[in-house]
Amino acid sequence: MEKKETAAASPMGMGGVSSRDEEVACNSTTMRASETCLRLLSVPLCISALLLMLKNSQQNEYGSVAYTDIAAFRYLVNVNGICAGYSLLSALFIAAMPRHYSTISRAWTFFFLDQVVTYMIVVGGAMSTEVLYLAEYGGAATTWSSACGSFGRFCHKLTASIAITYASLGCYVLLSLMSSYKLFTNYDAPPIRSPITAIHIVAFHASPN
Amino acid sequence: MEKKETAAASPMGMGGVSSRDEEVACNSTTMRASETCLRLLSVPLCISALLLMLKNSQQNEYGSVAYTDIAAFRYLVNVNGICAGYSLLSALFIAAMPRHYSTISRAWTFFFLDQVVTYMIVVGGAMSTEVLYLAEYGGAATTWSSACGSFGRFCHKLTASIAITYASLGCYVLLSLMSSYKLFTNYDAPPIRSPITAIHIVAFHASPN
Repeated sequence: MEKKETAAASPMGMGGVSSRDEEVACNSTTMRASETCLRLLSVPLCISALLLMLKNSQQNEYGSVAYTDIAAFRYLVNVNGICAGYSLLSALFIAAMPRHYSTISRAWTFFFLDQVVTYMIVVGGAMSTEVLYLAEYGGAATTWSSACGSFGRFCHKLTASIAITYASLGCYVLLSLMSSYKLFTNYDAPPIRSPITAIHIVAFHASPN
Repeated sequence: MEKKETAAASPMGMGGVSSRDEEVACNSTTMRASETCLRLLSVPLCISALLLMLKNSQQNEYGSVAYTDIAAFRYLVNVNGICAGYSLLSALFIAAMPRHYSTISRAWTFFFLDQVVTYMIVVGGAMSTEVLYLAEYGGAATTWSSACGSFGRFCHKLTASIAITYASLGCYVLLSLMSSYKLFTNYDAPPIRSPITAIHIVAFHASPN
């Protein structure tokens, strides 16, 4: 795969800057700005979800419960930490990178990391939602009792943390879409330019017919 | 967005079929075959996971348990059913569709449905894995006891069903990648062809300098 050369493929031929190129540049700037905004937006979302869960514990006459007691919640805390760190670093990297300066390895890296983070958030959100559901309604067959009746405050904070995680998931679904668009639109299989092809062009344009 | 015109953009100009076009056609055929194989492969995987879960019930001196008792397992059964049906229909549709006959609405539909099915499988797999983990190890804080000690056969079949679901997830991650590649490689923003651009081309080639 190599970068698609829009200038060479445009009707203007060599060295020309067509309306098509201007349009592509404009789209690229808009996408770059949207991408940076989405990454920056997901930073406070992930941190909020993380802090809500970290400070989530309750102690009463029935016993005590904290996020560390359930593996799914520990995983969600780790995922939100990774998401916040990655979102901030990637936003800074994109903002610091000169415009139109993108390499295939960079595009692949962003594409791969965005996909991984998105799937990690989906897994964390789904697992925590399932535990929350069981804590709310219990499981008759497995004799698991409803825990939210005894630990209502814990469950409310948990619900808020999971809801915020889903908001950051929304950002990452869009970011995954953008990074795959950028990767597959900008890079393609290497074009073959033989000398015979160049002779054909000259003959076609110079012919009096 | 409209289909990228590789023939017009190639150095051969109008009507020519370059090595680049042949290469693109060859890549397209390989991808089409791989895509159909992956869709056909995920049909037996989804059906196996579905049947394993449907027939999964155990009754002993401790009580009885079936997949219908847990919401996450009911969801996994539905997801595997949808996955099997969609995989078969989409494979038949792609096989029946004439080669190189693809429209943007079709590419968007496959891209969207593949993404939705992939996320549905991730959610189903993650939720079921979490319940299996709780059934295996229990939850001390929530006083949820380990259920796999009493219902070992149920847990073994459950593990097998979840493992097969992850195998079909692998197929769908690749299919999502392929459908996004096909969508973003083949379709782009509409190019602008103004009469002024055409005049520039003539002037450039006809100039004695």
